Amino acid sequence: MCGLFISFEGIDGVGKSTQVERLRAFAESLGREVVVTREPGGTALGAAIRRMLLHGVDGAAADISPRAEALLFAADRAQHVAEVVRPALDRGAVVITDRYLDSSLAYQAGGRELTAEEIRGLSMWATRELLPARTYLLDMDPAASHARLRHDEDRMESAGDGFQARTRQAFLDLAAAEPNRFRVVDASRTIDEVWEAIRTDCADLLNQGPSDYDRSDRKENGGVR
Amino acid sequence: MCGLFISFEGIDGVGKSTQVERLRAFAESLGREVVVTREPGGTALGAAIRRMLLHGVDGAAADISPRAEALLFAADRAQHVAEVVRPALDRGAVVITDRYLDSSLAYQAGGRELTAEEIRGLSMWATRELLPARTYLLDMDPAASHARLRHDEDRMESAGDGFQARTRQAFLDLAAAEPNRFRVVDASRTIDEVWEAIRTDCADLLNQGPSDYDRSDRKENGGVR
Repeated sequence: MCGLFISFEGIDGVGKSTQVERLRAFAESLGREVVVTREPGGTALGAAIRRMLLHGVDGAAADISPRAEALLFAADRAQHVAEVVRPALDRGAVVITDRYLDSSLAYQAGGRELTAEEIRGLSMWATRELLPARTYLLDMDPAASHARLRHDEDRMESAGDGFQARTRQAFLDLAAAEPNRFRVVDASRTIDEVWEAIRTDCADLLNQGPSDYDRSDRKENGGVR
Repeated sequence: MCGLFISFEGIDGVGKSTQVERLRAFAESLGREVVVTREPGGTALGAAIRRMLLHGVDGAAADISPRAEALLFAADRAQHVAEVVRPALDRGAVVITDRYLDSSLAYQAGGRELTAEEIRGLSMWATRELLPARTYLLDMDPAASHARLRHDEDRMESAGDGFQARTRQAFLDLAAAEPNRFRVVDASRTIDEVWEAIRTDCADLLNQGPSDYDRSDRKENGGVR
């Protein structure tokens, strides 16, 4: 396997999708194939699962049990990795995902009644243990990110600032536990400043070629530097 | 917890739903509350998941990865247990389900590329380790059961007799491994003969009251015997 797998994490409204697009343009300018994707919903199956999670079934959104919800997220991730992420990595592409494992850990384990170990175990099984080479955590005070958000009726976004503050802290704890994979980026700055912090870091990753997967075909990922 | 949890298992066409209805009528005649349910699809969420599993999403049925499929079955089961089975058992009801854990083990582990340990681990987590007090395996040669089936386009039923023969053997292996929980019933006999075998066994279970859950409120399940 080759390629480079990067995830963006953080609470809603911190500017993940803007930075994902900056990174896409940058990696493409270096001659890399780039696949941008997201969870939940990066596949047709995932989109159907996402509709169930956000809007419920027959108007019964609030009745999905915590374990069923965790398993649905894991099913979405399993399909996403099998259908989109691994094939792209196998081609040598840069895969950038808007949310991945850490969102499950921060939202489901941090905010509800399941343990992080349970959620992590599900996800690692679902993906056959695929982790990103790099995870950018865009970190910001929830009050500031809230002001950026349009109001909508998504179930996941209706839980109030106490929930967001706990989730933010859960992300920071995850980053502290895996300093090699995570980079915590202060997302309260301007878009250009945030991007500059990410670009500086990921330029190294892209220059290294397939950092996680040391293979003899490194040259085939060519165009890098 | 009280109540009595019974599952019916076996390949398609062996007469599970007929025997489920016989057992329902019998338990009701003894004064018990009976809840009849099924997997996949015993809840609104489960029905939506079942549609995805049988008919796919946007016509892409064959593309669901094995791990995503296993997680979707587990999500259905988690919701089914949390929403239907446990509340009914807590009320002291007899819960009869057409398929449960063993179908996942026989179909997913027996017929596809995942191990039984993996499937069992998912399911036990999904249900917080709820197993039936009794499982009736209706056993029959696939060629005979096939003749009983109307043809339909369900994805799960299109895999041919080799698949059904492997699945039948997987069920028999599961029964051999848990002789206390399982009763293997020869389903090639007449409906009345099959029912007589089941009635003889489950009369004892029903007479014992809440066999799995020895509680002081046994009398509240009254009318039994």
